[in-house]
Amino acid sequence: MKLDEIAVLVDGRLTGNADLVCTGANPPDQAQAGEITMLDDPKRAAAVAGSGAVAVITSSLIDDCSCAQVVVDDPRDAFAKIVSHFRPPVDAADWNDGISADASVHATAIVHPRAIIAAGAVVGARTRVGPGVVISARCQIGQDCVLNPNVTLYEYTELGDRVVIHAGVVVGAHGFGYRQKDGRHIPTAQLGYVAIESDVEIGAGATIDRGTYGATRIGEGTKIDNQVMIAHNCQIGKHNLLCSQVGIAGSSCTGDYVILAGQVGLKDHVHLGDHTIVGAQAGVMDDCPGNEVYLGSPATPQREQMQIMAVERRLPEMRREVKKLRRELDAIKGQLQSESTPAASCESECNAA
Amino acid sequence: MKLDEIAVLVDGRLTGNADLVCTGANPPDQAQAGEITMLDDPKRAAAVAGSGAVAVITSSLIDDCSCAQVVVDDPRDAFAKIVSHFRPPVDAADWNDGISADASVHATAIVHPRAIIAAGAVVGARTRVGPGVVISARCQIGQDCVLNPNVTLYEYTELGDRVVIHAGVVVGAHGFGYRQKDGRHIPTAQLGYVAIESDVEIGAGATIDRGTYGATRIGEGTKIDNQVMIAHNCQIGKHNLLCSQVGIAGSSCTGDYVILAGQVGLKDHVHLGDHTIVGAQAGVMDDCPGNEVYLGSPATPQREQMQIMAVERRLPEMRREVKKLRRELDAIKGQLQSESTPAASCESECNAA
Amino acid sequence: MKLDEIAVLVDGRLTGNADLVCTGANPPDQAQAGEITMLDDPKRAAAVAGSGAVAVITSSLIDDCSCAQVVVDDPRDAFAKIVSHFRPPVDAADWNDGISADASVHATAIVHPRAIIAAGAVVGARTRVGPGVVISARCQIGQDCVLNPNVTLYEYTELGDRVVIHAGVVVGAHGFGYRQKDGRHIPTAQLGYVAIESDVEIGAGATIDRGTYGATRIGEGTKIDNQVMIAHNCQIGKHNLLCSQVGIAGSSCTGDYVILAGQVGLKDHVHLGDHTIVGAQAGVMDDCPGNEVYLGSPATPQREQMQIMAVERRLPEMRREVKKLRRELDAIKGQLQSESTPAASCESECNAA
Repeated sequence: MKLDEIAVLVDGRLTGNADLVCTGANPPDQAQAGEITMLDDPKRAAAVAGSGAVAVITSSLIDDCSCAQVVVDDPRDAFAKIVSHFRPPVDAADWNDGISADASVHATAIVHPRAIIAAGAVVGARTRVGPGVVISARCQIGQDCVLNPNVTLYEYTELGDRVVIHAGVVVGAHGFGYRQKDGRHIPTAQLGYVAIESDVEIGAGATIDRGTYGATRIGEGTKIDNQVMIAHNCQIGKHNLLCSQVGIAGSSCTGDYVILAGQVGLKDHVHLGDHTIVGAQAGVMDDCPGNEVYLGSPATPQREQMQIMAVERRLPEMRREVKKLRRELDAIKGQLQSESTPAASCESECNAA
Repeated sequence: MKLDEIAVLVDGRLTGNADLVCTGANPPDQAQAGEITMLDDPKRAAAVAGSGAVAVITSSLIDDCSCAQVVVDDPRDAFAKIVSHFRPPVDAADWNDGISADASVHATAIVHPRAIIAAGAVVGARTRVGPGVVISARCQIGQDCVLNPNVTLYEYTELGDRVVIHAGVVVGAHGFGYRQKDGRHIPTAQLGYVAIESDVEIGAGATIDRGTYGATRIGEGTKIDNQVMIAHNCQIGKHNLLCSQVGIAGSSCTGDYVILAGQVGLKDHVHLGDHTIVGAQAGVMDDCPGNEVYLGSPATPQREQMQIMAVERRLPEMRREVKKLRRELDAIKGQLQSESTPAASCESECNAA
Repeated sequence: MKLDEIAVLVDGRLTGNADLVCTGANPPDQAQAGEITMLDDPKRAAAVAGSGAVAVITSSLIDDCSCAQVVVDDPRDAFAKIVSHFRPPVDAADWNDGISADASVHATAIVHPRAIIAAGAVVGARTRVGPGVVISARCQIGQDCVLNPNVTLYEYTELGDRVVIHAGVVVGAHGFGYRQKDGRHIPTAQLGYVAIESDVEIGAGATIDRGTYGATRIGEGTKIDNQVMIAHNCQIGKHNLLCSQVGIAGSSCTGDYVILAGQVGLKDHVHLGDHTIVGAQAGVMDDCPGNEVYLGSPATPQREQMQIMAVERRLPEMRREVKKLRRELDAIKGQLQSESTPAASCESECNAA
């Protein structure tokens, strides 16, 4: 799509080469060479510059911008239109029965007769699709994957090779994003998708929501246990281990070889560095540089948290000690008060003497 | 059903107008004009008086009761019989295939051939029902709803208009209620249903249990994220935001515009006032008046909890300070002990002088 | 299978009676008379001795071993081969449509036409199987069970009588067990199954993973609420109540009449004695002897935890008190310092006098 066509689509003012061709649309942290991106927050201008984007949708001209710019009143709204052009929303009414004539299923794939593969979906060699599985429109499934019964993949979901998904998993549902208007919560654009790289395994009942405009991504070799929840826009690194009932809020990302123990929660927009380990039930509120173990809610480096916990266990004893210190101190104060008289009298007596 | 027929059904003693007609049966907090209700706890007599009920099932006559009374030995047991009369239990054996001839599906609704709509169910205009969805007997679904794949609605579930339910959600399963008898847990009556008002959205894998006798209710415009659990009899207000993995125990209720962050837990029978906000992973044990932010487990007003957390981080330092205070205080005590001798000797020396 | 055949299968060195017949293979804590077991950890030799096993796979000869021994290089690998002999892995490709000709379904069972019952499965009298339910190969379902819509049972799952499973439950998915090799997580053997005893009820969306070699077991009469997660190898006792969103990590076990409140987490390999009660959101890190109530994370006996919590609420006040003690103590120290001068001067004055 040419840039001047995009400018017309969003009714925007173009600065740059009108004949430039955009091959896709993605948020700054995901935009690849040839794609258009969007700046909704001036603080993220550096991210735009750092991306491979050839053009950016913005509400006011960015100084020293290396790429073309399309200025509009509402960048989010305009960008949603552009994303919808490249990845058109799929109407639920399009669900077919069985395997769509417009799907491409490899001859060696084994698809249960009670599975559904919708239009535009691709299923790779030797992949097995169980009963009750719904592969929505334009999903791309690699080779040697296993989709166990009653799994639901929303439209545009991408799986690499050798991905194993256990029963009841839901991939690609809408992110939990709303803005308030006249006292009502209005859903924001949920136009993205979920990309799951090769050798990922996902446990029963886990849910992974689609990105807002781009991908929620699960890195290669990462293993996800039952009932884990990964919210929209998260970027999970490679070879992570996410234990049961972990919940990761929107737009958080993890490095490689991160381990989150059972029932851990991550705040939104948090970043965990490589080899971060978080202990069971901890709640991570801030970025972690990596190569460290965290415990507690709010999560604190292990050494620090162990010291805190050791004191917590002794709090009742400590409280008694503080009360005792108060009593003894008051006694000393009383004693000093009464002693000040003999001392004074001593002096006066001396003087008298 | 006339009141004398009800008295015969439950083998009870009637006080009041035998010809009175009861149009339904509901617990005191939900009973509407013309309905019969039940009093199993004398402390809740006021709730009966405040309801619109025309009659009440009770174990002993209530003084100054404005409505008719039916006295029985076991009010819960009797009420279960009456509720079952108005809302007859559905036998799982009644699940048909496809759309039941006794269901009423609007001509503009789009129902996937792999969905099931059971006898007595009603589906409104333009509502879309995905593959693997089970709409059990006598459910009532409004207009413009979207039911994504593999959703299960148990019998008598009610949805308003524009309700969106994501894949894998289960609405109306039995509440977790048991009484112990001879060392075994015996399920109590689970005869109620779930009522979901208009513009509610429910995230993937969430579960909402039916009420005991009446409705578990989700108020208009409330948005529920993935893997949220709402237990039996809960009354969730309007325009709430319940984030991922929140768990709300039985019979709790929330006002309007309540926000519960990720992994929050609510004890049973708790009431949160309008505009209450609860931070991630907090555990609410007591009622909250509203218009306040709560943090921590047990949840405490934010200001208070922030102060507690600030001290918690400094507990190891504080423990060292308490130990230091002890050492210094003991040193002073020792000093005072030994000084008391020179002071005395000073006096005696003076005297000697 | 005769012991010398087993030795050949795993290429092991046999010590004992070659003609001995093994009727099954199970881990030490589950091995019954006539079965072969495995010792991968010398510390567990006592468990082997205490089991009914007639033979053991081991990496080096055990002294004073009462049963036959097969010595191999890698006992886990060898044992996996033997377990696979007795309980052959089922290929997902074997999922049939409808009821397999090789399944045995009682004439009085009611199976929905959209349910799947695979080869070798047995379904007992009067059991009802809802739409979308997948009963995989060789499952054994007792009498009077109810399987609600969209339930998935993986192969070899066993249900007793009167078991109720709510919609969306997944039983028997692979345990979350990996070993690292060349920087990648390699799945370990997940060859076991899930055994659910009679009168168990399982809430909507709960997940129970299969054992590594033997059974994950849910004891008779235990009730499990929605979204509970029970990991591989857990042994849950009889008549437990596991409330919503509880997570139990691998190989943990509970006695009888244990109650876990909402969102409780159990570490792996933890043992809770009979009648243990754990309060909401608590995190159990250590064994509990039973007959006691635990609260908090890490979980502590209730009495102790209540005292800790009481002090925690007063931490800001305590901190102010400690600071006040410091100020007053410093004042006293200053006073004593300055008083030591007049006292000395008193003495000198006296002397002067």
